[in-house]
Amino acid sequence: MSVELRNRLFEQLDQLVLIDPHTHINALDPSSHTLADILGYHYYTELAHSAGMPKESIEEEGISPKEKVGRLIENLGPINNTIQYSWFIEMAQKLLGFEGDAVDSSNWETLFDSAEEKMAADDWTETVFRESRLEGVFLTNDFDDPLEDFDTTKYIPCLRTDDLVFHLTDPRTKVRLYEATDVEVTNVASARQAIGKLFDHFTSKNAKACAISLPPCFAPAKVSDARAETALARVLTSGEDADEADRRATSNFIFWTLAENCQQHKLPFDLMIGVNRKVFPAGVYQGQDLYDSRVSLIQYQQLFNAFPDVTFPVSVLASVTNQELVSYSWIFPNVVANGHWWYSNTPTYIQQDCAARLEAIPRTKQVGYYSDMYKMEFALPKFAMYKRILAKVLAENFVIDRNWTEEAAVELGTQVLRGNVETIFNVGQ
Amino acid sequence: MSVELRNRLFEQLDQLVLIDPHTHINALDPSSHTLADILGYHYYTELAHSAGMPKESIEEEGISPKEKVGRLIENLGPINNTIQYSWFIEMAQKLLGFEGDAVDSSNWETLFDSAEEKMAADDWTETVFRESRLEGVFLTNDFDDPLEDFDTTKYIPCLRTDDLVFHLTDPRTKVRLYEATDVEVTNVASARQAIGKLFDHFTSKNAKACAISLPPCFAPAKVSDARAETALARVLTSGEDADEADRRATSNFIFWTLAENCQQHKLPFDLMIGVNRKVFPAGVYQGQDLYDSRVSLIQYQQLFNAFPDVTFPVSVLASVTNQELVSYSWIFPNVVANGHWWYSNTPTYIQQDCAARLEAIPRTKQVGYYSDMYKMEFALPKFAMYKRILAKVLAENFVIDRNWTEEAAVELGTQVLRGNVETIFNVGQ
Amino acid sequence: MSVELRNRLFEQLDQLVLIDPHTHINALDPSSHTLADILGYHYYTELAHSAGMPKESIEEEGISPKEKVGRLIENLGPINNTIQYSWFIEMAQKLLGFEGDAVDSSNWETLFDSAEEKMAADDWTETVFRESRLEGVFLTNDFDDPLEDFDTTKYIPCLRTDDLVFHLTDPRTKVRLYEATDVEVTNVASARQAIGKLFDHFTSKNAKACAISLPPCFAPAKVSDARAETALARVLTSGEDADEADRRATSNFIFWTLAENCQQHKLPFDLMIGVNRKVFPAGVYQGQDLYDSRVSLIQYQQLFNAFPDVTFPVSVLASVTNQELVSYSWIFPNVVANGHWWYSNTPTYIQQDCAARLEAIPRTKQVGYYSDMYKMEFALPKFAMYKRILAKVLAENFVIDRNWTEEAAVELGTQVLRGNVETIFNVGQ
Repeated sequence: MSVELRNRLFEQLDQLVLIDPHTHINALDPSSHTLADILGYHYYTELAHSAGMPKESIEEEGISPKEKVGRLIENLGPINNTIQYSWFIEMAQKLLGFEGDAVDSSNWETLFDSAEEKMAADDWTETVFRESRLEGVFLTNDFDDPLEDFDTTKYIPCLRTDDLVFHLTDPRTKVRLYEATDVEVTNVASARQAIGKLFDHFTSKNAKACAISLPPCFAPAKVSDARAETALARVLTSGEDADEADRRATSNFIFWTLAENCQQHKLPFDLMIGVNRKVFPAGVYQGQDLYDSRVSLIQYQQLFNAFPDVTFPVSVLASVTNQELVSYSWIFPNVVANGHWWYSNTPTYIQQDCAARLEAIPRTKQVGYYSDMYKMEFALPKFAMYKRILAKVLAENFVIDRNWTEEAAVELGTQVLRGNVETIFNVGQ
Repeated sequence: MSVELRNRLFEQLDQLVLIDPHTHINALDPSSHTLADILGYHYYTELAHSAGMPKESIEEEGISPKEKVGRLIENLGPINNTIQYSWFIEMAQKLLGFEGDAVDSSNWETLFDSAEEKMAADDWTETVFRESRLEGVFLTNDFDDPLEDFDTTKYIPCLRTDDLVFHLTDPRTKVRLYEATDVEVTNVASARQAIGKLFDHFTSKNAKACAISLPPCFAPAKVSDARAETALARVLTSGEDADEADRRATSNFIFWTLAENCQQHKLPFDLMIGVNRKVFPAGVYQGQDLYDSRVSLIQYQQLFNAFPDVTFPVSVLASVTNQELVSYSWIFPNVVANGHWWYSNTPTYIQQDCAARLEAIPRTKQVGYYSDMYKMEFALPKFAMYKRILAKVLAENFVIDRNWTEEAAVELGTQVLRGNVETIFNVGQ
Repeated sequence: MSVELRNRLFEQLDQLVLIDPHTHINALDPSSHTLADILGYHYYTELAHSAGMPKESIEEEGISPKEKVGRLIENLGPINNTIQYSWFIEMAQKLLGFEGDAVDSSNWETLFDSAEEKMAADDWTETVFRESRLEGVFLTNDFDDPLEDFDTTKYIPCLRTDDLVFHLTDPRTKVRLYEATDVEVTNVASARQAIGKLFDHFTSKNAKACAISLPPCFAPAKVSDARAETALARVLTSGEDADEADRRATSNFIFWTLAENCQQHKLPFDLMIGVNRKVFPAGVYQGQDLYDSRVSLIQYQQLFNAFPDVTFPVSVLASVTNQELVSYSWIFPNVVANGHWWYSNTPTYIQQDCAARLEAIPRTKQVGYYSDMYKMEFALPKFAMYKRILAKVLAENFVIDRNWTEEAAVELGTQVLRGNVETIFNVGQ
């Protein structure tokens, strides 16, 4: 009974046309050209590496896309249990017409060639959008992205700010800021001016969010202008050699300034909380980051109180933080639960976290899912995974456990999949 | 099969007459007078506020109960997915004869009026007790509560001690202590004397527990009398301006003295571990508290070892602490797992936590549930929620997974719902 | 449907002959002689103690095995809900021909006597191996174990190193080291020499792993030889009175030396992370340890990076650390998820943790289960519990949720139960 029920719910949720509220899509080159773009995704390279494939073999310079795919395919056997592998297969089946259940040495070349042909079509990106039932995607733009030459209502800009908050120690950041704003940052006033210009630029280009990923130790706090002045001067002068205390004060000053600009420009500020960068420096590209799950939203108490008018869509990296996210979203009007991020983007954790959110956070304050993808082809299998889990939770925890009608369950699912993206980010309405 | 099975188990568990081992009922005014008493519960005001309703609109002075309810009803749409909303509807259906599935602008006035009429009946409180199949409720009494003019076998006193442990810095606490005990607290000896008098008074009035809620940073430790003497003097003199170290030593001294009195008076000491007060000061009344889930029962190691004769029914605020609670209850004879508290009182967390307890803690050492309610009408829907989850866990994890008979499963459920309340708190036998 | 499906999967998994990769079996006396060896297991004594049985009654010197069993049986009623009790009953049914569902005062003597008779048979140990479908077990050997007089291909040695890392403060450890290696440890060089000799001895006796249990505060770090020299000298001189800093530096030096030897001898290094010893000193034997669940694998970052050629099968004590274990195993080639340890070895936590691992860690990098047993009779019920949960997860999360064939699901189950033990520990192939 429950399986049929959830299939019925899934079918209805699967008809929806969606906007993906967080991706790393390059608007100038959104979809893949060969399977190398697909299997080059860190989920495959890092898992193949973890299962024993040498990094040198994965990342050898100058090998052809076909050679790269051939090498990876030979090493995917040990990961064919993973949900990440299932995304690849479902994508191949639904978008590339692949008819098998596994891609291996017997069939990969045929698939590679037919994929390359399909992906070469002028309308491939449009095909992917249509087959994936997507009408738009949020980008993750460097602060100095010109945001030109693409349709910003379909590829919606989002100002990513990690470099500003954490890498002002790198002289290159200062140069990039100057090139982007014509402001030379030398002190608090010029930093404010430069950041204000970035927000003006981004909002003029239809940006709908500001975003940042944050390490577990970060605890935003307001610092005085005097303290910021000293700290910023030292960071701009000494770079990586600056004191930890000065670096932290500078990060706090910049972060707070971003929040002030979000308030002024009415932009939601996506907080992606909990990642430690380069924990495994010998890992493959983008496969080096991990985390310390001992993080608490209490670290954001001052921020949430200081900016009641800024909406904070919050993502947490570890499922053990999900209950705090539920509770903070339940109490703070400006905190919203946002998707299932990275290491929590696997079915067991999604199911537990999704169920806990749906039953205790106001239905208007949760964004069900984002794909976090780098290439358009991943929206379909990732959203499909989420929609299956959402349908399961709605079936079991609402229709069966709480006697909801199927219609009401689909309405709730529709709201977290689509409606809240519209209202929270002010898009697609 | 499983749904019918759990319904059968639920039906049997639902027949039990219970004693609710933790509530905030006012024995002199236990039940509601209008729906404003129901919707004024912080679960509704804080969720409505979180979903966008202004605090000023919720808490405006001088508005009538009906006006208040009308305003709240208009703002409950965004929370109609929550389990908290379902408590309201189930209560209205079962106690007020409401026949719909949702209360909205079309029907709330009728419900308000009929509720007011029902609640005005002389025997309304008795009706609620009977319909809820409750025979008694534990109270949460201020230390200076005279405990007079009510039946203490039905409204069972419980000495709540947060003020003593954490608010001796407030001169008003000292005055209240004096008024309650005729002892002026000026030093360690008089503090001991005053506290001893409180316990004498409470136990003479049939108190069956001492209770306290504790912040995540609290780690009880015995302090020497000499240290306590100095610390207490400074706290009594300087109040909020006293050193953090002196405040902590004073809290520890008082806390330890409470445990000594629990031992002497054979009272269980309910520990409710993990709440941070006023994290969101702009929140509505009672909707300002949150938590840091990074707390460990290792902080209570010294206490549990020092008082082997005191039973500690322990509640944890976050589900991530539940496994520690399971393990500590499994090893320490004096630690008992107690209910599902506040932010963990939602189905997904209850199910996981309840299942983990039932399979690894001695069956005699777990109290299934308490309502934590402020008005009697909430016992019915809250216990009903719990009993449905308990029936689900017993059905799936015991009858199906472990081949238990339904009879044995109901026996286990009966023990955690009723039997253990009797034996652990020495009531109702 | 799901119940029949998982029964089918269980039946197939239950046919496998296994090697148990972590036990505390004494190779010279592997199985039980009476039920006192069974009910003397800390799981029963600590639960009976927790439920109210006095320690003195459990551990009275000089009582006969039958007296001990009689006393314990009288106190098992309060724990008959636990999964640990179910191990006892299933063992009695499957190995001792017991036909009831509960052992109590009415039938325990008969069972005691018939068990004693069965266990006295010359081939009892062989019978237990055969009925349990085990072909070998890993031991947990003290570093000075001579490893003589047993078949090391069936009882596979494992070098346990807690004493070396944490108890060099005990003069007895130094003496034992001398007796085992003929090396008097007085400085860094002699410590290295002694440890090298231990590894030579163990590997010459077919040892297949090095293992250690670690407290939550431990964070391995490389220390310089100069620092190690000073620290070691002080620890050897002052014992328990040595500085905390010197003790920590010594622990780190020894630990790092162990890892170097694992690398050189190609031995996996089992890390069992998170236990605090003697939290409840008044507890029964082996029933005194608990934990602080606030531990993170980030503490092992330096280690995992420094020894890419050493495989680290990692066990975590608390389920809240399981997601980190999943993520670290997913990224680090040398980290492997290993079994469900102690307080996490109960169905609710196993199910959640097992599901999360199977869907995100390469299938080659997870060891499903070990029994951790002290007597051979426990392998059967403990593995049976695990296999039932594994079958449930494979049925629900793979066959139903992800459309896997039953055959593919059984293959995955077979690999985590048997195949990976072979490849990771280099045994039984």
